[in-house]
Amino acid sequence: MPKLVDHQERREAIAHALWRVVDQHGWSRATLREVAREAGVSLGQLQHYFASRSAMLTFAMEFAADRTADRVERGLAALEDPPHPRDVLRVVLGEMLPLHPDARASSRMSAAYVLEALHDPALRERAGLGLRDGRATVERLVREAIARGQIAPDRDPDVETDLLLALTGFTPLLALGVVEPDAALAAVDQHLYRLFASA
Amino acid sequence: MPKLVDHQERREAIAHALWRVVDQHGWSRATLREVAREAGVSLGQLQHYFASRSAMLTFAMEFAADRTADRVERGLAALEDPPHPRDVLRVVLGEMLPLHPDARASSRMSAAYVLEALHDPALRERAGLGLRDGRATVERLVREAIARGQIAPDRDPDVETDLLLALTGFTPLLALGVVEPDAALAAVDQHLYRLFASA
Repeated sequence: MPKLVDHQERREAIAHALWRVVDQHGWSRATLREVAREAGVSLGQLQHYFASRSAMLTFAMEFAADRTADRVERGLAALEDPPHPRDVLRVVLGEMLPLHPDARASSRMSAAYVLEALHDPALRERAGLGLRDGRATVERLVREAIARGQIAPDRDPDVETDLLLALTGFTPLLALGVVEPDAALAAVDQHLYRLFASA
Repeated sequence: MPKLVDHQERREAIAHALWRVVDQHGWSRATLREVAREAGVSLGQLQHYFASRSAMLTFAMEFAADRTADRVERGLAALEDPPHPRDVLRVVLGEMLPLHPDARASSRMSAAYVLEALHDPALRERAGLGLRDGRATVERLVREAIARGQIAPDRDPDVETDLLLALTGFTPLLALGVVEPDAALAAVDQHLYRLFASA
């Protein structure tokens, strides 16, 4: 009797192959054909899992987002209970920056996805949803911290949320070695320190 | 007698064709062949100007950077003389964000270039140099403002420079409509206000 194929596992193996292609040859080489070759499956088999390049990219992006969420989860589990919102934000922002190999893969994937999304309405919709979810999470943390007197009450939660999200602007600076990981983390810490010192 | 071709003009026309291809079909479609078609020249003619895709991308990127520098120049010329460093930084950061069509084209070009640079050592070198130049300009402004007592003397110029550069993190948020232009500008203003209010 033939072994049942675990579809999720197969999809994840394909996502990994896509990451390797992007990592080694760049986004523009990430065609269905090239990814099938890297994953060691036929183009037909790959198309059984992903009908289009855009479906493959979306899965790979969401898989990357899930892995980032898992890393954040593990980081949060290591904090004291209940955690200080400043520490929560440090874990969230830290895992969004390309500071270690897994985060680098996710971050590169995400930058490529945003670029692709700019001229693909379906991807744009999904990418926008993901970012809006992330923004909502950060905004909730900021509003709770203001309500608890951990951030000054005259801080505008929308502005503070946007400034926190903008810290992901370290991504290209880190990727090209213009800013070192220690310096980026020190700057993020300084920003968080001032935000919470305002109370 | 045949008209002499203005080489710089021809190169710029090709750069514009590349931007249109990237804008309409995305970075991965920006091959020499596709750009030649869009520019209305033969592949051979295009290769006369650019020997490789990477040479074409580099020229288009530097052309975009020059246009950004021109816009910054015009913005600075409109400031009072001598300009306040806060206003200089607002002009520089404002022109780096995708807030109007020309800045959107440059910003998209630059994001794509960074991605391409990650696995192309020659592009990486150039992209890194460009970003380091930009960083040095911002750092000089910050150090001067500290020396003149416009920013508090206990602010670390390296950290402040990095935090200012990280504000370009609004780029993907603006591009995908997660943050509106007014909100991004308000957040940049708030950051600059606090930096200079520290003195």
